[in-house]
Amino acid sequence: MSKTTLAIIAAVSAATGAGVTAAMYSTRSEKKAQTAASSTSVSATSTTSVPAPIPGGLPLQAKEIISPVDPAGLFQYGFPGPVADLATRHALISSFDRRLRNPSWVAEHITPDSLSQSNGDRKHSNFVEDTAVPEKFRGKLKDYFRSGYDRGHQVPAADAKWSQEAMNDTFFLTNMCPQVGEGFNRDYWAHFEDFCRRLTMKYPSVRIVTGPLYLPKRDTADGKWRVSYEVIGNPPNIAVPTHFYKVIFAEDGTTSGPVAVGAFVLPNAAIPNEKPLTDFEVPVEAVERASGLEFASKLPIQRRRRLCADTVCALVIREYADRQKAFGKDAKQIAAPTRTSPRNSNL
Amino acid sequence: MSKTTLAIIAAVSAATGAGVTAAMYSTRSEKKAQTAASSTSVSATSTTSVPAPIPGGLPLQAKEIISPVDPAGLFQYGFPGPVADLATRHALISSFDRRLRNPSWVAEHITPDSLSQSNGDRKHSNFVEDTAVPEKFRGKLKDYFRSGYDRGHQVPAADAKWSQEAMNDTFFLTNMCPQVGEGFNRDYWAHFEDFCRRLTMKYPSVRIVTGPLYLPKRDTADGKWRVSYEVIGNPPNIAVPTHFYKVIFAEDGTTSGPVAVGAFVLPNAAIPNEKPLTDFEVPVEAVERASGLEFASKLPIQRRRRLCADTVCALVIREYADRQKAFGKDAKQIAAPTRTSPRNSNL
Repeated sequence: MSKTTLAIIAAVSAATGAGVTAAMYSTRSEKKAQTAASSTSVSATSTTSVPAPIPGGLPLQAKEIISPVDPAGLFQYGFPGPVADLATRHALISSFDRRLRNPSWVAEHITPDSLSQSNGDRKHSNFVEDTAVPEKFRGKLKDYFRSGYDRGHQVPAADAKWSQEAMNDTFFLTNMCPQVGEGFNRDYWAHFEDFCRRLTMKYPSVRIVTGPLYLPKRDTADGKWRVSYEVIGNPPNIAVPTHFYKVIFAEDGTTSGPVAVGAFVLPNAAIPNEKPLTDFEVPVEAVERASGLEFASKLPIQRRRRLCADTVCALVIREYADRQKAFGKDAKQIAAPTRTSPRNSNL
Repeated sequence: MSKTTLAIIAAVSAATGAGVTAAMYSTRSEKKAQTAASSTSVSATSTTSVPAPIPGGLPLQAKEIISPVDPAGLFQYGFPGPVADLATRHALISSFDRRLRNPSWVAEHITPDSLSQSNGDRKHSNFVEDTAVPEKFRGKLKDYFRSGYDRGHQVPAADAKWSQEAMNDTFFLTNMCPQVGEGFNRDYWAHFEDFCRRLTMKYPSVRIVTGPLYLPKRDTADGKWRVSYEVIGNPPNIAVPTHFYKVIFAEDGTTSGPVAVGAFVLPNAAIPNEKPLTDFEVPVEAVERASGLEFASKLPIQRRRRLCADTVCALVIREYADRQKAFGKDAKQIAAPTRTSPRNSNL
């Protein structure tokens, strides 16, 4: 990770204290949404102002405001959103970002048992557009074509070998982001996914949330922080994330025991295999601030352990060619036409 | 508007046909969310597969998949979001983007009556952080300090003069985005806001949705499309939009009559006053594709008129100094320390 990236990540406190309870919408927001949806011409403000008490007198009654306008009337034409298309599948649950045409997050669950089953073969899986997303917001296969980027699984196909249907679930484009192929998706990132699977040797239940980030970098020319990312497709459609995160919950198999939590942020770029995984470890809150999401708001601090203190956070490097030989059916699929690959069937 | 910007905008078709009905979440997504929330170990996939009929036989029963995993179990630690903080106030309704720390959209309603009332004075309004947004996702006053950008109202203060409380509503930072001051917020954009108000001379009811965009530009060096924007604050916190949109619904005062719809996208940059407003007119769908939002999914095509065909879309230019003299209390407030201004009280 570059120093500049590290700076933004490190800038937040490590405290991942009790957060706000995040439901689909918070209770407060829900109340507001209902208020908004009702088409009354007298708007109720969400901030009830308490009048200052008059010295020696009774407090003033809060003045009811008779509004000449009705901002909520807009919703007669449809609620603007944003809508996060949520897909619940055998292998994963994903939430889609219609603006960037990438998932916001994809959640999965792996266990020693689920990884031991081998009923799915990626030879029988095909990358597919997710038609549950309206056409104008959908990522397209053609967006990736000749883009130079891999269709990078967020939940890896190899984590869903327990059934062909489950493996197929991982091939929806709502589980993909444009990823740098060589040196990242087919290398360091693949080793990182392997690390996650190996966690099941110690932990009977492992939950992983994976997703893209778009992080700012300090411009050396003027000292300003800027986010800059490519958009692929013609017309430009899918954002190329600058980074990817994984938030890992390693459980002891009970519902109230300790949970080893680890968060990692990796740049979408070639990373030398020698680079220690711990270089990419960040506080969960760093991912939360950068993504606008919350991952552990309901996990009491007493139950939390730091994953990399509880176990060794290190990769086991198997070269791509070796992996292809040993686990041919798990070899990464590639969208870039510049690389010849037997798995590159969509070109 | 630059040619490159126009290209991305123009790339979409002008057809704003019947869209998907967008509620807070679509019915389908709601169903999925409920499925996701239940912590069953047998996952139900959202895509029910219908088996192919066997020739000469009965169709196979859809095989129930016994899942060894439970992706939805993640939600025991809290649902990740994204949460769009919705604020319903007298003057506006806003939806907040926790990742970019700007609103996604802010909706308002103006009428000849609401604009004729003058009970609010911006001298009595102060910019305030919106504490309804959790601290780690909140835009801060200090983020704007010495940033070089104005705290740019999305719903203008001058549209809410009908009450002091309503005007105060427009000063929450959830109604602000960083805007270029000279040549934009204090000039062309201000004239554009004035154009919206003048629409009430022809239309008895005008609804306006305003918000930021982050649009890609074609890099002449390598021909790739890239989004690039500054992030202000220390640590970097609030994104500086590349563009702003307004979607305008000019109504005839009935609930079933024709609606003149206009959409405009302006760069967050100095724009010469001579530039015709119609240069920035775009199809509504262009704003939808760029923002990930939907604005008119429930407005039947038969009721739609094109605003700039129904009325003259042109600015009336009043110079900043004149406006300050004539409408001193509406003068724009400024966060940039480089400009001396009597309204610049927060520096």
